[in-house]
Amino acid sequence: MHNRWGAGRTEAFSDGVFAIAITLLVLEISVPLPAFANLWHGIWHEWPSYLGYVTSFLTIGGIWLAHHGIFRRLQHVNDRVMRLNLLLLMAVSFLPFPTGLVAEAIRDRDAERAAVVFYGASLFVNAVIVGALWAAVVRDRQLLRPDVTDDEIRTITLAATPSIAFYGGAIALGLLAPRVAAVGYLLIAIVNIVRAPGDQPSTPPASSAPAA
Amino acid sequence: MHNRWGAGRTEAFSDGVFAIAITLLVLEISVPLPAFANLWHGIWHEWPSYLGYVTSFLTIGGIWLAHHGIFRRLQHVNDRVMRLNLLLLMAVSFLPFPTGLVAEAIRDRDAERAAVVFYGASLFVNAVIVGALWAAVVRDRQLLRPDVTDDEIRTITLAATPSIAFYGGAIALGLLAPRVAAVGYLLIAIVNIVRAPGDQPSTPPASSAPAA
Amino acid sequence: MHNRWGAGRTEAFSDGVFAIAITLLVLEISVPLPAFANLWHGIWHEWPSYLGYVTSFLTIGGIWLAHHGIFRRLQHVNDRVMRLNLLLLMAVSFLPFPTGLVAEAIRDRDAERAAVVFYGASLFVNAVIVGALWAAVVRDRQLLRPDVTDDEIRTITLAATPSIAFYGGAIALGLLAPRVAAVGYLLIAIVNIVRAPGDQPSTPPASSAPAA
Amino acid sequence: MHNRWGAGRTEAFSDGVFAIAITLLVLEISVPLPAFANLWHGIWHEWPSYLGYVTSFLTIGGIWLAHHGIFRRLQHVNDRVMRLNLLLLMAVSFLPFPTGLVAEAIRDRDAERAAVVFYGASLFVNAVIVGALWAAVVRDRQLLRPDVTDDEIRTITLAATPSIAFYGGAIALGLLAPRVAAVGYLLIAIVNIVRAPGDQPSTPPASSAPAA
Repeated sequence: MHNRWGAGRTEAFSDGVFAIAITLLVLEISVPLPAFANLWHGIWHEWPSYLGYVTSFLTIGGIWLAHHGIFRRLQHVNDRVMRLNLLLLMAVSFLPFPTGLVAEAIRDRDAERAAVVFYGASLFVNAVIVGALWAAVVRDRQLLRPDVTDDEIRTITLAATPSIAFYGGAIALGLLAPRVAAVGYLLIAIVNIVRAPGDQPSTPPASSAPAA
Repeated sequence: MHNRWGAGRTEAFSDGVFAIAITLLVLEISVPLPAFANLWHGIWHEWPSYLGYVTSFLTIGGIWLAHHGIFRRLQHVNDRVMRLNLLLLMAVSFLPFPTGLVAEAIRDRDAERAAVVFYGASLFVNAVIVGALWAAVVRDRQLLRPDVTDDEIRTITLAATPSIAFYGGAIALGLLAPRVAAVGYLLIAIVNIVRAPGDQPSTPPASSAPAA
Repeated sequence: MHNRWGAGRTEAFSDGVFAIAITLLVLEISVPLPAFANLWHGIWHEWPSYLGYVTSFLTIGGIWLAHHGIFRRLQHVNDRVMRLNLLLLMAVSFLPFPTGLVAEAIRDRDAERAAVVFYGASLFVNAVIVGALWAAVVRDRQLLRPDVTDDEIRTITLAATPSIAFYGGAIALGLLAPRVAAVGYLLIAIVNIVRAPGDQPSTPPASSAPAA
Repeated sequence: MHNRWGAGRTEAFSDGVFAIAITLLVLEISVPLPAFANLWHGIWHEWPSYLGYVTSFLTIGGIWLAHHGIFRRLQHVNDRVMRLNLLLLMAVSFLPFPTGLVAEAIRDRDAERAAVVFYGASLFVNAVIVGALWAAVVRDRQLLRPDVTDDEIRTITLAATPSIAFYGGAIALGLLAPRVAAVGYLLIAIVNIVRAPGDQPSTPPASSAPAA
C-alpha cells in the first residue's frame, strides 16, 4: 500500500513531541533533602544534571532545527518518511531516560562508563534516524517542493552526515574517559545548532522573503 | 441540543493530547540505584520497560494516524463525534498507567497475568472507541467533506475493524502466556501503522496533490 | 494602558495548556508494589484514582469546550480578558494537585472530607473564572465578531452560570457525605459537556457552514 | 553562515515549550502522607508551594506575553535571534526546578537564603535573555515587519528593561530577608503582566484591527 500525507500536519505533531521532550528534561533534576544543610553546595553538586540538561536540550533543539529544515521543503510525506519520522519521535522522546541516568551515574566509578556510552548510543541513534529520514526524502524527489534546488539538498546532506561520525568518536572516547565524552556530546550539539541550515540564506537576495 | 464544531480545532487539540501522552511514556522507565553496581546489566534488565514504551508509543502513533485519517475527511464535528473524541483522548491519556504497570509486573509470576490482561483491555478499549468514532461519522455523512468517496470510507472502515478482533485474541492469549501476548500487542501496533490509510494514495494520479 | 491581542494566538496557547493539564492527570495514578501480590485486587483498589481521573478529565474537557465556544466568537482580547484567561489557565493547571489529593484521601476518615471540599473548591474557582471571562467579553462587545447574535450570547451565558451553583451545592454536600459529593462533581462535569454550545446549531439552516 | 527562518514556526514551537513548562509546575506540589491526619492544616502548610506556583506561573505568563509581543512584529528570525530564543526556552524550561527548591527550602533557616537567591538568579537570567532577544531584533531592523513604528520599538524596549533592575534588587534583598524577596518576585511578575504591550493599542484608531 502506498500512501501520502500532508507535510504540515506531520510537522506540527512532531514539533509538539519535540517541545514536550525538551521540557520534560527538567524533571530529572533535583537536590536531595539532606543536601539542604548546605544548599549552595547541594545546588553546585548537581552539576552533572545541568550538563545533561543542557546537552539534551541543545541536542533536541538541533534535531528540531534539522527536522524543520527538512519538513519545510516537503510537499508530501510517503509511507517510508512517515515511519522514519515516528521512529525519530520515539528516539527523541526516549532521551530524558539516558539523560537522567548519566546525571546520576557520572560520579560513580562503576556506572559512569556504561551510562555515558548508553547516552551516546541514544544520541547516535537519533543522528542516524535524521540522516535516514533525509535520505528517504531525497530518494523520492516528488516529495520535495518544486523550488528546492540541488544546492539546498547538498547543504542539508552535508549538515546531516558528520554528526554520525562525531558521535561514533565520542562514544569510543567514552570507554576511556567518560567525562570528556560527556562534554564532547555537548560540543556536538552546539556545532549542530550552529551549522543548521535556515529556511533560506539571509545574504544576497534577501528581498523576496517568504514568511513562514 | 444539536451542535456542530469545526473539525480543525478539535483535531489540533487532539494532536496535542496524543503528543503529550506519547512523550510521557518515558517517565515510566528508570533504573533503580542498586543496579548501578553493574549498570550494563541494570540497563538490560529494564527490557520490559522498553517493550512497554515501544508498544504504547507505536499504539498511540497508530491511533494518531487513524485519527488524522478520519479528521482530515471531516468538515464538522457533531455532538456524538465530539463526545466520542473526548472519550478517545481519555483512553489514550490513560495508557501510561497500564504501560508502567506491565513493565513492573512482567517478572512477577503473581502479577504478570493481571497486568498484561489489564494493559490489553486498555488497548482494546482504545480500538473500540476509534471504531465507534468512525461509525458515528459514517452515520451522518453531512459531516464528511463532499469529495470523500465511498471507496475511501470502505478503506478506513476496513483499517479500523480488525484490530478489535486481534486485541480480543491477544488478551485471551494473555491469560495463558502473558509474555507472548505482550509481544502480540506490539505486533498489532506495527500492523496498524503499516496499514494506516494516508491522506491520499500516492500511486497513479499523483498529479493533483492537495497540500496539508 | 489599554491593549489588544489577537484571539487566535491566545486560544492556541490556552489549548496547549488544557491539553497538557488533561494528560498529566494520569501521573497521579499508580498501584503500590505490595499490591502486586494480588494485582487484580490492587488495580480495583485504585478506584478513587480512576474516579478522580475521569472527573478532572471531563471537567477540563468541558472547560475546553466552553473556552473554545467563547474564543471562536472573539475578534480581539483586551487586557481584562487576557488576565482572566491567564488566571483560568493557572486554575486549570492546578487541578492535578487536588485530584491526586482526593484519590489518596478518600479512604481516610480523617482526610476525605477536607480533600473532597478542597477539590470542589478548586472546581468552583474554575467555574467562577469561566463565568467572569465571559462577563468581561460581554462588557466590551467590540471584542466579539460582528456576526455574533444576542441569542448566542444568551445561550453561552446560560451555559456558564448554573455550574457555579451546582458546585456550591456539591461542596456543602461534601461536608456531610464526601463520597456522594465526589460523584456529584463527576455528574456536573458530564452535564457541562452535554450542555456545551457548539460553534453553531446543526439543525435548520445547516447549509452555510463555516469551516473552523 | 547566515540564515533566516520564518518567525511563525519558531513562535509556535516556543509557545509549546511555554505551555508545557507552565503546566509542569504543579508537579512540584504535594502534601506528604503524614499530614493527612489533619489535612486542612496539611493543605495550608504547603503555602510556599502555592507561592512558588503562582510566581513561576505568572513569570512564564509574562514571558509568553513579551515573547508574543516581539515575535508578532517579526518577519524573519536570523541566526542570533534563533539561538537566543533557544537559550530563552532552556531558561524557561529550567524554572520548575528552582521553583520546587524554594517551596521545599523556605521553612529551613539554613536553606531558604540559598534557595531564594538561586530562584531569583534564574528569573534574572530569563529577564536578561528576553532583553537580549529584543536587542538582537532591533539591531537588524530588516527582521521586523515594515509596519512596525519607532514608537512601538520604544514601548517594547521600555517594557523589557526595568525588570532586570527589579530582579537585581530583589536578589540583593533575598540575602537579608528571603521571604520578602520571594514576595517581591511575585510582584515583579504581576507588574510585567500588567505592563505587557499588546498587539496594538485598543484606544483611538481601533477601526483597522488585524485578526491574529
